Amino acid sequence: MKIIKVDLKKRSYIIAVGYGIINSIGKFITKLNIGQDAYVITNPAIKNRYGELLKKSLRQANLNVKFKNIPDTEKSKSIKTLSSVMNDIAKFDKRKRIFIIAFGGGVIGDLSGFIASVYKRGIPYIQIPTTLLAQVDSSIGGKTGIDLPEGKNLVGVIYQPRLVLSDVKLLNTLDQRQIRAGLAEVIKYAVIKDRMLFNYLDKNYKNILNLKPRVLEYIVNCCSNIKAGIVEQDEREEKGIRTILNFGHTVGHAIEAAANYKSYNHGEAIGLGMLVAADISSSLNLIGHSTVKRIEGLIKSVNLPTHIRGVTLQKIINAHYHDKKFIGAKNRFVLIKGIGETKIVENIPIKIIKQAIKKRLSWPGKLDSSSGGI
Amino acid sequence: MKIIKVDLKKRSYIIAVGYGIINSIGKFITKLNIGQDAYVITNPAIKNRYGELLKKSLRQANLNVKFKNIPDTEKSKSIKTLSSVMNDIAKFDKRKRIFIIAFGGGVIGDLSGFIASVYKRGIPYIQIPTTLLAQVDSSIGGKTGIDLPEGKNLVGVIYQPRLVLSDVKLLNTLDQRQIRAGLAEVIKYAVIKDRMLFNYLDKNYKNILNLKPRVLEYIVNCCSNIKAGIVEQDEREEKGIRTILNFGHTVGHAIEAAANYKSYNHGEAIGLGMLVAADISSSLNLIGHSTVKRIEGLIKSVNLPTHIRGVTLQKIINAHYHDKKFIGAKNRFVLIKGIGETKIVENIPIKIIKQAIKKRLSWPGKLDSSSGGI
Repeated sequence: MKIIKVDLKKRSYIIAVGYGIINSIGKFITKLNIGQDAYVITNPAIKNRYGELLKKSLRQANLNVKFKNIPDTEKSKSIKTLSSVMNDIAKFDKRKRIFIIAFGGGVIGDLSGFIASVYKRGIPYIQIPTTLLAQVDSSIGGKTGIDLPEGKNLVGVIYQPRLVLSDVKLLNTLDQRQIRAGLAEVIKYAVIKDRMLFNYLDKNYKNILNLKPRVLEYIVNCCSNIKAGIVEQDEREEKGIRTILNFGHTVGHAIEAAANYKSYNHGEAIGLGMLVAADISSSLNLIGHSTVKRIEGLIKSVNLPTHIRGVTLQKIINAHYHDKKFIGAKNRFVLIKGIGETKIVENIPIKIIKQAIKKRLSWPGKLDSSSGGI
Repeated sequence: MKIIKVDLKKRSYIIAVGYGIINSIGKFITKLNIGQDAYVITNPAIKNRYGELLKKSLRQANLNVKFKNIPDTEKSKSIKTLSSVMNDIAKFDKRKRIFIIAFGGGVIGDLSGFIASVYKRGIPYIQIPTTLLAQVDSSIGGKTGIDLPEGKNLVGVIYQPRLVLSDVKLLNTLDQRQIRAGLAEVIKYAVIKDRMLFNYLDKNYKNILNLKPRVLEYIVNCCSNIKAGIVEQDEREEKGIRTILNFGHTVGHAIEAAANYKSYNHGEAIGLGMLVAADISSSLNLIGHSTVKRIEGLIKSVNLPTHIRGVTLQKIINAHYHDKKFIGAKNRFVLIKGIGETKIVENIPIKIIKQAIKKRLSWPGKLDSSSGGI
């Protein structure tokens, strides 16, 4: 087991990464002394597969357990689900030493963290992420929130968990498309911060797709370390440091939105967004064309799409201008100066952005070989 | 105009107290530089009476204004109202420099503050309290929240406003019962912290009930100063300092709940709770009987009830054990050692508490002369 500390003074916590470590969750919680009543928010698939195991470990530590099933889809990040879960928690909360366990993917983590942040002015919560995407990204750093009809994540706060336990064994519940989606974020960390990780991915991507425990543990540990370091420096995304984690996200979010959140999942869209960001970096002479090709090669290797299908340029541009990363009329992109090095650039001419997106658009009769997407 | 600073480092703000100062709100906001789009949450009565005045001042400072009317009753502190207001805000929020103005009583202040705390990870908000209760208490200190069916204020956070503007002129919208309710909290400040204020109230209560501007300004200023000082020392109610503000609230809340939040408003219940707390203090020989009589005398003078009607002892005791101030089986009371001096006492024998409540219960045929309540 690897232990990574997220040092945020009073709000510090650890990330435990390992294979089969879910058995130790009871001991971790006893040590933390955060309460007696565990309210576990999870999804039906995870509960069926690993619910009993979690329950057993919690019971052995003399904790009371209640499970709450919600679907692990974006629709659950609604005020409606919030309300129903809140009412259920208030009923369960009799002894007044309650805490929450988010046992699922990013949706469950975001919703659970938000509930923990506002219930009785904040109660402790623990993240046990069960997707690769959540293990390497969303479970760390305390971003929590729900959606409004007007936009995603419009309601939310920064509220840190008391523990993140990433058991890579749980990843065997995922299908290949979900694994690839997580890999897109792993590639992102490599591209923005860690050339060695990039080389490792280049060599080992097959073992990742085949869910080899040792390899999964290595990459989750690597990414958790990078994310922890960034969150420590800029917890509230105020200093422009945490911003680099948005590499590929500006255009990625626009692609997701333009495709009505249907054709592409988050990871696939972010993969495409990274390629657009790399192309823009190349247009601005921050990197050479060979670097774009290296990134594109890795994305292709893990079977993530390298070209955008079924969405028009105009739709992407429109969605893009509603993205949170735009302040007023100014745009702001995280670009790269090489693999492992970022640069934030503002006010990029719209012409250059359009060119970069166009390059990635597949027109009928010019289909690429990528397997993701629609 | 009086200016009181609430010193909370990065979260510091001022409280402005005066007569007719609502005209200056635009200037205050310009100075704070918190945004361009003012989303004003208010109630129909206040909007009819003072909406245009507020709008004029905001417009003169080149601010955009949108009003949102909600009823100023406890029912508005619901997830349903939260959801409807949030969706409305997201529609209004196009320029991304939005802030909220809570223009009403405690309900509107609590709801607005909570919305501001969670919308887009927190946007600025301003309190313009329009009841005496809100001016002397709830608008200061950042307690925000909504209710769940299982209990009041179960959802909420501590989130400080950027300005509190208390215009005592706005109090002329209140009826006498609302003024008395606010006075209960004023008396509380005097009893726990300020013997001079107590003497002042003893002499001037008629001028307060008659809404004399100079007197209102004096007491709002006095109470704001006390509350600001306490909040500065213990913002998150973790050090047992802010706790003294709960004087009279433990039993007061129980009386409110036992009467199904119908027979007594918050201030009336708190007045009764203070008398029970004073009786307990006397039972424990912390104060003499004459001190109880002095407090009772003042409460009687302002026409607040001094005896409890229409509720049984058992109902109060039951409600009381669900109060947030009870940790496990332990009880904890804020008592007094004299006028202006508090002492927190734990594990008071239930017999003594029951005796004190019994003393305040009016049985049929033994009615007291107080005018509040049912």
